[in-house]
Amino acid sequence: MQGGDPYRQVTIAYIAEQAGVSIPTVSKVINGRSGVGAQTRARIETLINEYGYRRPEPAGRADIMELVMSDLESMWGLEIIRGVERTAREQNVGVVLADFDQRDDETRGWVEQALARRPNCVVTVAQLTQAQRDQLTARSIPFVVFDLASELQDDTPYVGATNWLGGRSATRHLLELGHRRIAMISGPDHVLCCRARVDGYRSALEAAGVPVEPALVRRVNLCHEDGRTAGHDLLRRLDRPTAIFTANDVLAIGVYRAAREEGLRIPEDLSVVGFDDLPVVSWVDPPLTSVHQPLREMAATATTLALALGRGEKPAQTRIELVTTLTVRQSTGPPPPERR
Amino acid sequence: MQGGDPYRQVTIAYIAEQAGVSIPTVSKVINGRSGVGAQTRARIETLINEYGYRRPEPAGRADIMELVMSDLESMWGLEIIRGVERTAREQNVGVVLADFDQRDDETRGWVEQALARRPNCVVTVAQLTQAQRDQLTARSIPFVVFDLASELQDDTPYVGATNWLGGRSATRHLLELGHRRIAMISGPDHVLCCRARVDGYRSALEAAGVPVEPALVRRVNLCHEDGRTAGHDLLRRLDRPTAIFTANDVLAIGVYRAAREEGLRIPEDLSVVGFDDLPVVSWVDPPLTSVHQPLREMAATATTLALALGRGEKPAQTRIELVTTLTVRQSTGPPPPERR
Repeated sequence: MQGGDPYRQVTIAYIAEQAGVSIPTVSKVINGRSGVGAQTRARIETLINEYGYRRPEPAGRADIMELVMSDLESMWGLEIIRGVERTAREQNVGVVLADFDQRDDETRGWVEQALARRPNCVVTVAQLTQAQRDQLTARSIPFVVFDLASELQDDTPYVGATNWLGGRSATRHLLELGHRRIAMISGPDHVLCCRARVDGYRSALEAAGVPVEPALVRRVNLCHEDGRTAGHDLLRRLDRPTAIFTANDVLAIGVYRAAREEGLRIPEDLSVVGFDDLPVVSWVDPPLTSVHQPLREMAATATTLALALGRGEKPAQTRIELVTTLTVRQSTGPPPPERR
Repeated sequence: MQGGDPYRQVTIAYIAEQAGVSIPTVSKVINGRSGVGAQTRARIETLINEYGYRRPEPAGRADIMELVMSDLESMWGLEIIRGVERTAREQNVGVVLADFDQRDDETRGWVEQALARRPNCVVTVAQLTQAQRDQLTARSIPFVVFDLASELQDDTPYVGATNWLGGRSATRHLLELGHRRIAMISGPDHVLCCRARVDGYRSALEAAGVPVEPALVRRVNLCHEDGRTAGHDLLRRLDRPTAIFTANDVLAIGVYRAAREEGLRIPEDLSVVGFDDLPVVSWVDPPLTSVHQPLREMAATATTLALALGRGEKPAQTRIELVTTLTVRQSTGPPPPERR
């Protein structure tokens, strides 16, 4: 081998050979680690300077992170994407978006694809399996769980909203208007944030001394059609409720439809409160009273947290709920006089 | 240096040294290139097998492409994201999503970030500047323009929908129901797809011998509030239209609101036709008749095209419009008897 040929790419092995040391020793010097004697270090540094060793270009491209969604069909997802994308872009990080249909369990193949993209971090709205979590953890890729779908492990970073308080404030609002027969249409019980909303509703009723009637609490899928069906069901009862609180806005829009089909006016005959406060709810007629979930801010918070974890920082707070607030619009009023 | 230490990472330089050849010679053998004598090649291969040389991981990460959106606020964007994401995932390509507010001209910094991510290709709904197009072209990163916002250069790959035919079919539907005073609320004239929809509307009127009344054609921003305002404006005219065709669904929802506020029923007093046929239009009351734009299929087509161009292929078709179809629901009917 020729020494000092300026056009040949000099490798660590070559420098190690010239210095009469092992490759790991050269590597230590290049990477500024300890464990190399002063004389040896000096000899290696001289050789490095002589041969102009340059570290190969970093293997990675510009930074990316992964955002894993489910149910992108709902408008809910759009707010989250915007929040994540803005925050990541400010930090010069690209957002790779994956969207899964939970029913098809499509997430199985995702983690291999994601690992091959070498993301800094992951924000996931979709539920990951334990195996997927382990794969990420093994590669030191931190992930932040967005919103409370299922039981969290104690050490999982998480950003959500105050679901229990939101359910409570929606119900209190209806109680203050004079309602006593207040129904709730919620999502499946295994979706933890829905459970928290139902508990907030119950808590407000109990605090007001109003008995909780199990028949007035429905658990359906979080979609328009199920809101409509459950709405019909509740509104056809002889002792029909004067108000319905739904666990999301899309269910509320389904209830609107059911109310119209039953010949009931909102809010004169029926008050409705939704949850999420999506932009669309100010377009519906009448504009919907809804528990505002600050989705964009939650998404920004989750992204900031995930990126910080990805840089190896130790943020003081890694499990956060942002507050919900009630936005009162025109879908709520006092109960009809004959039913007070 | 020790030879054959199984725990040491063996480099090309080390094999070259052991074989008594130059580093480029070893590289040629590893990469299967010609220009190495048979004996030398055999010696090198023996050493490679002996030392277990493994090629370093490729420098790049898994493949990604860029999706550049604008107006992600609208539900329109969601359908496109889903279409692009599914198609790319099938080909094991990650989708990096950027979302821009056109008014803020935020796209300026995007291209540098995108280039540093080394995407295979770009699908863009947002408008790129000439400089950005040039930067992509210089790096052989193909881009496909999604939807017809502005004048296209002749060689720009493009996937859109048959806007002109869509405008024509919506208007023909209203004419066939007996309407003669048909208004149109469109977007700004510089948005080419809106212009095509207006021209389709005009063409249908002319074919039916109905004069086009300039006062009945409004150009506003493609948002709910502008639809409502233009709706009020048209519906307060003494010679108010019996039907309104809008250039998108969100405008139509604005017209719904205006009609209610004017005390007009849909479709008894006013027929309304939208454009896009977003999922939400089957929830509004009454469900909206709308020109279906196959957004998800368009997105899939644009993605397939962009990925093919990114692989250096020469697809037969690089400028495509998919057909629109009219979905008739309950917002259209004959004009009121007194105004026929």
